[in-house]
Amino acid sequence: MSYRLGDLARHTGARLEGDPDRMIHGLNVLQAAGPGDISFLANRKYRKYLKATRASAVILGREFLAECPADALVSDNPYLVFARIADLMFPQAPVHAGRHPSAVIADSAQVDAGAWIGPGAILEDDARIGPRAYIGPGCVVGRGSRIGEDTRLVANVTLCHDVRIGRRVLVHPGAVIGSDGFGLANDGGMWVKVPQLGSVRIGDDVEIGANTTIDRGALKDTVIEDGVKLDNQIQVAHNVLIGAHTAVAACVGIAGSTRIGQRCTLAGGVGVVGHLEIADDVHFSAQTLVTRSHAQPGHFSGNLPAMPNRAWRKAIARIRQLEETEQRLRRLEKGAGPQPGERPDEE
Amino acid sequence: MSYRLGDLARHTGARLEGDPDRMIHGLNVLQAAGPGDISFLANRKYRKYLKATRASAVILGREFLAECPADALVSDNPYLVFARIADLMFPQAPVHAGRHPSAVIADSAQVDAGAWIGPGAILEDDARIGPRAYIGPGCVVGRGSRIGEDTRLVANVTLCHDVRIGRRVLVHPGAVIGSDGFGLANDGGMWVKVPQLGSVRIGDDVEIGANTTIDRGALKDTVIEDGVKLDNQIQVAHNVLIGAHTAVAACVGIAGSTRIGQRCTLAGGVGVVGHLEIADDVHFSAQTLVTRSHAQPGHFSGNLPAMPNRAWRKAIARIRQLEETEQRLRRLEKGAGPQPGERPDEE
Amino acid sequence: MSYRLGDLARHTGARLEGDPDRMIHGLNVLQAAGPGDISFLANRKYRKYLKATRASAVILGREFLAECPADALVSDNPYLVFARIADLMFPQAPVHAGRHPSAVIADSAQVDAGAWIGPGAILEDDARIGPRAYIGPGCVVGRGSRIGEDTRLVANVTLCHDVRIGRRVLVHPGAVIGSDGFGLANDGGMWVKVPQLGSVRIGDDVEIGANTTIDRGALKDTVIEDGVKLDNQIQVAHNVLIGAHTAVAACVGIAGSTRIGQRCTLAGGVGVVGHLEIADDVHFSAQTLVTRSHAQPGHFSGNLPAMPNRAWRKAIARIRQLEETEQRLRRLEKGAGPQPGERPDEE
Repeated sequence: MSYRLGDLARHTGARLEGDPDRMIHGLNVLQAAGPGDISFLANRKYRKYLKATRASAVILGREFLAECPADALVSDNPYLVFARIADLMFPQAPVHAGRHPSAVIADSAQVDAGAWIGPGAILEDDARIGPRAYIGPGCVVGRGSRIGEDTRLVANVTLCHDVRIGRRVLVHPGAVIGSDGFGLANDGGMWVKVPQLGSVRIGDDVEIGANTTIDRGALKDTVIEDGVKLDNQIQVAHNVLIGAHTAVAACVGIAGSTRIGQRCTLAGGVGVVGHLEIADDVHFSAQTLVTRSHAQPGHFSGNLPAMPNRAWRKAIARIRQLEETEQRLRRLEKGAGPQPGERPDEE
Repeated sequence: MSYRLGDLARHTGARLEGDPDRMIHGLNVLQAAGPGDISFLANRKYRKYLKATRASAVILGREFLAECPADALVSDNPYLVFARIADLMFPQAPVHAGRHPSAVIADSAQVDAGAWIGPGAILEDDARIGPRAYIGPGCVVGRGSRIGEDTRLVANVTLCHDVRIGRRVLVHPGAVIGSDGFGLANDGGMWVKVPQLGSVRIGDDVEIGANTTIDRGALKDTVIEDGVKLDNQIQVAHNVLIGAHTAVAACVGIAGSTRIGQRCTLAGGVGVVGHLEIADDVHFSAQTLVTRSHAQPGHFSGNLPAMPNRAWRKAIARIRQLEETEQRLRRLEKGAGPQPGERPDEE
Repeated sequence: MSYRLGDLARHTGARLEGDPDRMIHGLNVLQAAGPGDISFLANRKYRKYLKATRASAVILGREFLAECPADALVSDNPYLVFARIADLMFPQAPVHAGRHPSAVIADSAQVDAGAWIGPGAILEDDARIGPRAYIGPGCVVGRGSRIGEDTRLVANVTLCHDVRIGRRVLVHPGAVIGSDGFGLANDGGMWVKVPQLGSVRIGDDVEIGANTTIDRGALKDTVIEDGVKLDNQIQVAHNVLIGAHTAVAACVGIAGSTRIGQRCTLAGGVGVVGHLEIADDVHFSAQTLVTRSHAQPGHFSGNLPAMPNRAWRKAIARIRQLEETEQRLRRLEKGAGPQPGERPDEE
């Protein structure tokens, strides 16, 4: 599918600098694009590729326009313009209605006539599948679970019983939704399982990454609000609530009963301990461990970035001595005579 | 199912404060409970909800009894009492014996007449399934694997060949047991695979979380002892041994040949390097990296909790300078004159 | 299968110290081996078991030969010798050609006559399966994906559409290859999905661990080069490139567009942020967070190993005060008089 550059500008609201009749046939990164391609500059790290790009047009911020050797779509948010153009040029194929003969569909399951149930998919009793939903190969939809319209389970997704998923949700392979929370009571050194009687509710327009796991609640539900985006290999424990439009990168773990606000971002590998309250618009850097509630928006960090191994060994040794260092410093402060600005009366 | 409060007290051994004939119909958290519900207070963070609860009865420690507006079940371990009541009121459904017609069962597999083999499940040659075992939809039980009585594989679980699983084990979706260990020998810069000839043995009353992986041993078996509880997304490498009644929270990784003692707890995100020996009753805080053996019980930690990003940037810069800081401190100690109690002979 | 020790020496290039006609029937670790077994010493931690071993032969470095109570195969790389002997004595069974009747194979899929398609496996349109490939139970091979000769998908593996996998690749259960990258553009606080139009290319002789996830590229492909070894539960984001013969341990996350060089090693739990360039022969310790590019080979670390909880609490408090500590030290330096070697002119 080809598009006039002027039409792409109109479709996205970007400002056109160049020939509105230039035809665009494809998308590519700056360094690989050729004639007929549109490209984009959204991360300064790739600015070095701009001058030599062979793209016919580039989406960029106005601060880079002077360096652009091609036609341009100028925007404050080039990545969003790129997303809209990619979506226009490569739209997702509509769902083909029907049921593969190898699918196993319980008699009591209710499947909308416009939904697709793929090969080897299994729908247990009372499962409900909405209009234009796509249940991919090998997916299991547990007893009583409901899936909203236009939602897609890509492949080998497992929904346990009584899970509710909204509309236009996209669930990637290997994700597990509604597994038991890790509820254990200790009885004299042995663990007794606490029945997990809640479930999981997922809003609209949510994306759930490959091999991500979301546990069902103990009594109340685990809740993922509208527009939340979860990357791969994330663990969401029982009774967690993730507020609308929060984005969570891969390998994050959120412990039980913690509530995360709206529009937060958790970078890769973040860990959040249980029973916390995180306000709206809080941002955590990669691999940060969150051990207390955060009532205010802000950006928080807590990792120790890579150092050369020898320097790191010394730093760790010094960290272990910090208490002793403090004592030495105090002795010096006591014994080293007056200090300007601190004990001026003694001068 | 409804219960007299007096019967619940007797069933759990809790002390009743209130009307033994009060009828209990449901369970809920303090802030959502209504008449007819029993609730519980096991974490001080939720004490704030006690005074206003509408529950008919609350399970709690005696220190909170004075604040309780309802009947009470008093116990030193309210969470355990809650677990027993939840189990009584919402018992797990018994396994329905049989085989779904879509299951693929090798001729040489031995399946107890009381077991259930679900839709799309696959039992390879010589698999053995015990009484009342539940093999959920999409599960694969590899060649020669054995599953004990009352054990449940929820859905889409994969057991590789020759894995042995005990009784009353619960395995959540997406778990993989018996995959090859990561055994590699280096041959001039290229990696040569080391065959993984051991297997995995799992005791009784073990729980294994969603998408958790347990590798088979290289020569000996990987061993999970009785009563171990593993949360979601845990990685257990080859030849690890996890001692009885140890509980491991989500996102933990345990490297090869490490032995963990009994009744240990590993909080979320802990990493344990290989070839270590961890004693019984050792506890690790969230995201701690364990780099040496621990011969004694205790509580160990090693993370850097979240700070405001600007403060963190400064702290990291200072950590990188600690060696220099030490040198500066030494110079001061040398040159700043006598210090009380340290070099008194020089005074 | 039994082997003469002399033949094992010749097969592996190790130097024989002992009886070339001794027969070897099995492999075991030093502490469990008995007569007829060969064992090995590749990690000094197990040296303590050498003297009392009952093995008939031991593979070891010459520095341990004097302590060896049995015949020996002497090598600079005992683990490699062990790998070759294990492979010789316990060769992988050849693939049995055919298709299980429960497999679902699209009419347009091309399956080599020598490949095996297991029970419940699903091949979508235009999938291509090479000679002697093994598609295990429950695997999904998406539309247009290609699998090279002698490649094995063990069980419940998911390949999304248009993924290319080379020869002799081994993919463990639950792995997901070709899921959408986490591409999101922000539109006034809401996230807009960026279509992921690239795919994944995997070279020859790659191993991919259980529940590992590899996302497809946004425009270009995510690339795993020849001989790369990935352990379990690793996350590889879109457009990452991992160079040949790099080994990545479990629970590592690599963020988008990062390029890792050849022959690198990433220990367990490492996190690498996006858009970095890591040179060849770079090594990262367990749980290290990599936040910048590395242009030179080397060994880098960045974690805070476990300490007793009380010592750790104090260390963290001191770390939070480091800025203040610095100010105190500066005041001392200013006010404490001349310091030898620093300001000698003032003495």
